[in-house]
Amino acid sequence: MVIVLKNNCDKNQLDRLTAWMREMNIEPHFTHGQNQTIMGLVGDTSKIDVDMLGALDIVESIKRVSEPYKQANRKFHPEDTVIELENGTKIGGGNLMVMAGPCSIESEEQLTEIAKSVKASGANVLRGGAFKPRTSPYAFQGMREDGLQLLVKVKEKIGIPVVTEIMDYEHLPLFENVDIIQVGARNMQNFELLKHLGRCDKPILLKRGLSNTLEELLMSAEYIMSEGNEKVILCERGIRTFETATRNTLDISAVPLLHQMTHLPVVIDPSHATGKASLVPSMALAAVVAGADGLIIEVHNNPQKALCDGAQSLTPEQFDDLAGRIEGAKQVAYR
Amino acid sequence: MVIVLKNNCDKNQLDRLTAWMREMNIEPHFTHGQNQTIMGLVGDTSKIDVDMLGALDIVESIKRVSEPYKQANRKFHPEDTVIELENGTKIGGGNLMVMAGPCSIESEEQLTEIAKSVKASGANVLRGGAFKPRTSPYAFQGMREDGLQLLVKVKEKIGIPVVTEIMDYEHLPLFENVDIIQVGARNMQNFELLKHLGRCDKPILLKRGLSNTLEELLMSAEYIMSEGNEKVILCERGIRTFETATRNTLDISAVPLLHQMTHLPVVIDPSHATGKASLVPSMALAAVVAGADGLIIEVHNNPQKALCDGAQSLTPEQFDDLAGRIEGAKQVAYR
Amino acid sequence: MVIVLKNNCDKNQLDRLTAWMREMNIEPHFTHGQNQTIMGLVGDTSKIDVDMLGALDIVESIKRVSEPYKQANRKFHPEDTVIELENGTKIGGGNLMVMAGPCSIESEEQLTEIAKSVKASGANVLRGGAFKPRTSPYAFQGMREDGLQLLVKVKEKIGIPVVTEIMDYEHLPLFENVDIIQVGARNMQNFELLKHLGRCDKPILLKRGLSNTLEELLMSAEYIMSEGNEKVILCERGIRTFETATRNTLDISAVPLLHQMTHLPVVIDPSHATGKASLVPSMALAAVVAGADGLIIEVHNNPQKALCDGAQSLTPEQFDDLAGRIEGAKQVAYR
Amino acid sequence: MVIVLKNNCDKNQLDRLTAWMREMNIEPHFTHGQNQTIMGLVGDTSKIDVDMLGALDIVESIKRVSEPYKQANRKFHPEDTVIELENGTKIGGGNLMVMAGPCSIESEEQLTEIAKSVKASGANVLRGGAFKPRTSPYAFQGMREDGLQLLVKVKEKIGIPVVTEIMDYEHLPLFENVDIIQVGARNMQNFELLKHLGRCDKPILLKRGLSNTLEELLMSAEYIMSEGNEKVILCERGIRTFETATRNTLDISAVPLLHQMTHLPVVIDPSHATGKASLVPSMALAAVVAGADGLIIEVHNNPQKALCDGAQSLTPEQFDDLAGRIEGAKQVAYR
Repeated sequence: MVIVLKNNCDKNQLDRLTAWMREMNIEPHFTHGQNQTIMGLVGDTSKIDVDMLGALDIVESIKRVSEPYKQANRKFHPEDTVIELENGTKIGGGNLMVMAGPCSIESEEQLTEIAKSVKASGANVLRGGAFKPRTSPYAFQGMREDGLQLLVKVKEKIGIPVVTEIMDYEHLPLFENVDIIQVGARNMQNFELLKHLGRCDKPILLKRGLSNTLEELLMSAEYIMSEGNEKVILCERGIRTFETATRNTLDISAVPLLHQMTHLPVVIDPSHATGKASLVPSMALAAVVAGADGLIIEVHNNPQKALCDGAQSLTPEQFDDLAGRIEGAKQVAYR
Repeated sequence: MVIVLKNNCDKNQLDRLTAWMREMNIEPHFTHGQNQTIMGLVGDTSKIDVDMLGALDIVESIKRVSEPYKQANRKFHPEDTVIELENGTKIGGGNLMVMAGPCSIESEEQLTEIAKSVKASGANVLRGGAFKPRTSPYAFQGMREDGLQLLVKVKEKIGIPVVTEIMDYEHLPLFENVDIIQVGARNMQNFELLKHLGRCDKPILLKRGLSNTLEELLMSAEYIMSEGNEKVILCERGIRTFETATRNTLDISAVPLLHQMTHLPVVIDPSHATGKASLVPSMALAAVVAGADGLIIEVHNNPQKALCDGAQSLTPEQFDDLAGRIEGAKQVAYR
Repeated sequence: MVIVLKNNCDKNQLDRLTAWMREMNIEPHFTHGQNQTIMGLVGDTSKIDVDMLGALDIVESIKRVSEPYKQANRKFHPEDTVIELENGTKIGGGNLMVMAGPCSIESEEQLTEIAKSVKASGANVLRGGAFKPRTSPYAFQGMREDGLQLLVKVKEKIGIPVVTEIMDYEHLPLFENVDIIQVGARNMQNFELLKHLGRCDKPILLKRGLSNTLEELLMSAEYIMSEGNEKVILCERGIRTFETATRNTLDISAVPLLHQMTHLPVVIDPSHATGKASLVPSMALAAVVAGADGLIIEVHNNPQKALCDGAQSLTPEQFDDLAGRIEGAKQVAYR
Repeated sequence: MVIVLKNNCDKNQLDRLTAWMREMNIEPHFTHGQNQTIMGLVGDTSKIDVDMLGALDIVESIKRVSEPYKQANRKFHPEDTVIELENGTKIGGGNLMVMAGPCSIESEEQLTEIAKSVKASGANVLRGGAFKPRTSPYAFQGMREDGLQLLVKVKEKIGIPVVTEIMDYEHLPLFENVDIIQVGARNMQNFELLKHLGRCDKPILLKRGLSNTLEELLMSAEYIMSEGNEKVILCERGIRTFETATRNTLDISAVPLLHQMTHLPVVIDPSHATGKASLVPSMALAAVVAGADGLIIEVHNNPQKALCDGAQSLTPEQFDDLAGRIEGAKQVAYR
């Protein structure tokens, strides 16, 4: 940690600061210049409260030199984490997981049909929303408990692991037969939820918030891991920018960067990121080539109303075409 | 609502869409051009699921013409909402509320001293954090239940209403003697929390998320109001931009704009927005002149460690100087 | 074009507006609702000054239904534009162009060595900066005229077309032997420069500004094209967001989206976008798979100072490895 | 300057780096820790090319400790710069300048009428656009030379200094009778233009780019100042964010922050920032209270077409009301 001190800082305050550091067994080293003094701290600086330090009269700025995330940090865990689902499906360490399914669970028929179809195309996890976070309280909030029951029923009928979103830790008992629990972007910093998920032993798919940095994403993973659950899968799903032609801006560079920062698997959600079905296949393949460990893709089928081709959902046929291209992309993936 | 249809859209699909609208008692009006067809919908379009509509093959884009927020909408409630606390303190409709106090509650002595001081300077609500949302699980998480008890004790001792943050609706019983319950920026779209707060009868101070639009803020207010609690106070606390010289960018234009959109009171938090004590007084006064109904300001005092002058906290002396200027600013406020 | 009128708009003003539209041979169609009136305009609305229209008392908002870009619009030019350089090298329509070279031209030896090396690896255009836009007036501004002369000399010696940046149209005569003229991100809306480039007949590599939308990028292309030069190559080079781990955020979704919007070739600059050499290969390959028509990559070699491995530059060896992978990525590209 | 070195950095490379620093008369100080080494540099580090340094194999990151702007820096010039126009009007150092007028010059009658009106209301500078930067090449580009001549004619007729935008340094001779030359947001980093303006002796109103940091704004001021022209007025006119309810987000905190960083005057443009006339008065007054040295406000009058009340322009009556409130706001301004 590097502390830049203000010009002409008060000698007494500096002595108190030095003494405070020594109390924590940290020996400061000084670099005195004409216009400034730099204080270098080495040792275990994780105990230092940066906010309190930054609040000091004599401190101009502080620069952390080591990362604030520990358990998620690749430096202390160089090998890729590989997470294995109950049926043996793996993610991470070169194992690509393809999650596909409808945004919202609507009925048993709908879910069964899509599940069969995406499994046949090669998806190895079924996604389907039961609890839906919606900007408006007047919008459909999902089938909730009933939707979860349908999801588990279809899982057993078709034989495919399932992933679905949790919005409230009170609902955790309902997720007993769910294989992967998703935390949505809006809840990435719902710390009470994260702590409770850290005490269960299921894989957690943690989505990056719309305006959160990668370091903040890792700090949220750290909330889960520090409670004992190391099975965290990170998900980039688009960030909020000024561009209005896409719903969000997909940050594919997050894939190689997160792979440098952490050992956790990284998946990409091109459906929510772009909000446009026509952009999903190229973004999915680009993510695989950039080294993504998985994809989560919306697939929808609504023949009875002929209301197909969702704004961001692929049809089963479009997904089948995409799935057929994934292996080829994997062959040229860069890691 | 205006629907722009794709070029050469399928006649059968268009008939189905028209029929669907009529089922909802909405009569579409068409404007046919050489290259496009525009469909105007009037009537109660709040029932229409825009996502489902946007998912149709034949739809190019949709433009909402009326606002999606209802209970918060000034159109349907032209008078300012005035919220009154138990002791008679009012906010809204020309009543300025000044909330001040420490970021974190540290001890009874600390809190008592600051409470006395800010009350003497003219603050009419004491703020103090007991449950602290922290990016890092390793950082101080607040005194939690003990902090809440201290806050209530000091409230009674000094005679000043209090505001503090809730992070989990399970903690609601602990907030019985709190006057205003704060929802932090990170929980602005924690919809389960909002719904529970909508079922209590305390004023809710709802902070805008770091990358949320004003419309989204109002939709979150709507979550609370639609459950029955109309006492919502909106708070702008800085948005995330590319600028790094301040912690966030304070959007003061949110004050007059929200006053056009909604009847709810609007307060400004210049401390968290800027992250710099030296910017707090000018931003606080600018907010008052722009018509803000309140301010929430960090004030800290830590004489025993001489670690005063927090990065974003004013000293009691600085706050006293600012408080003395607020009345003058109010005299020239524009509304 | 759709105009949403304000509630209770003045009848006289509405009549004047209607008359104004008819003067331009545009017949308005009205949809009257309880709370609003929508005015649909079809016909040639390109003559309408949207700013003036939006300034009317009775207008609440306006929605363009057709795109403001004409010559760049794929709707009116469905075939991909293919640009051919003097030596026969093509870009667009399935032809991938790989531009590589140093950020700044430093000496004949440096440039010659890098040119040989990247050509041997498979690059078909040499890049090299002579005029350098620098944030600071005190930073190295490039070798300017001397650098341009070196670039042309090396072009002829090695036999490879060259691309370099222009900052001032007064310098145009110096670019006579340059094959592609680059407009940097900071000059994307330097309209006087664009107009002059529209009057020359060289291919223009137009970089997207750091906070410009894709529509704005196309409007800047339109400035060049409307003066007669249709040889515009669009370049995405990262946009400015809140993320600080990369220099900018590379928006790869711009590739398929621009391909829908326009017939012009689209290239990606992963070096400037990420600012980190370690991210360049994966982002370059991802861009190719997403359908990019070209890449522009920084390659640097500085053995005498052993100051290799530039922050965002690849070494010749790293570039050679990447170049060897590009063909494989092209095989699985999605378009 | 602080350099953080990579773990286990190569001893030979470190020696070469140390030697390179000493060649520049900079003595490095080392802080060695278990996991990292920090190198503190004091002395005149302005000669160091940070890009080249950051490109070194052994360097993990660099932190500048001193600001890169020199002539604009308040540290080296503690007194406010006061700029005086030919007629004695001053800006800076407590002198408030109010610039008002139409976005575009349309005719002598229009400009004369507005000039009279705003002067009577208290404006001390007339603004009016002759060269208009427009996103679209098909939009009205301003009256150009003819507009400039009208502006100067009205200046002389009414007796009020004038400010107008330059887009091309070739046009400089036309600006001989203009009092303040404006550089628009899109040209903030048009460095060739800035250098030419640095060689004239007129005050330059430099607008912040839509996604530029305050440090970058000061570096652009530095381009002008380093060529000899110290009369630079900085202008905040809104930055680009995700919010869509306003055209841009006005960053009023830029006023007190720039006053800390620099001695140059700071003005606010609430018209372009918000894009809504209804927000202009409150934002203008808030800016004055925050310490702004000036305002630039759009005022328009178009009675013959009854097309008044421009989206972002005040009517002369609205401006008169605002002008009457400015003095009151100035009385409670915070500096």
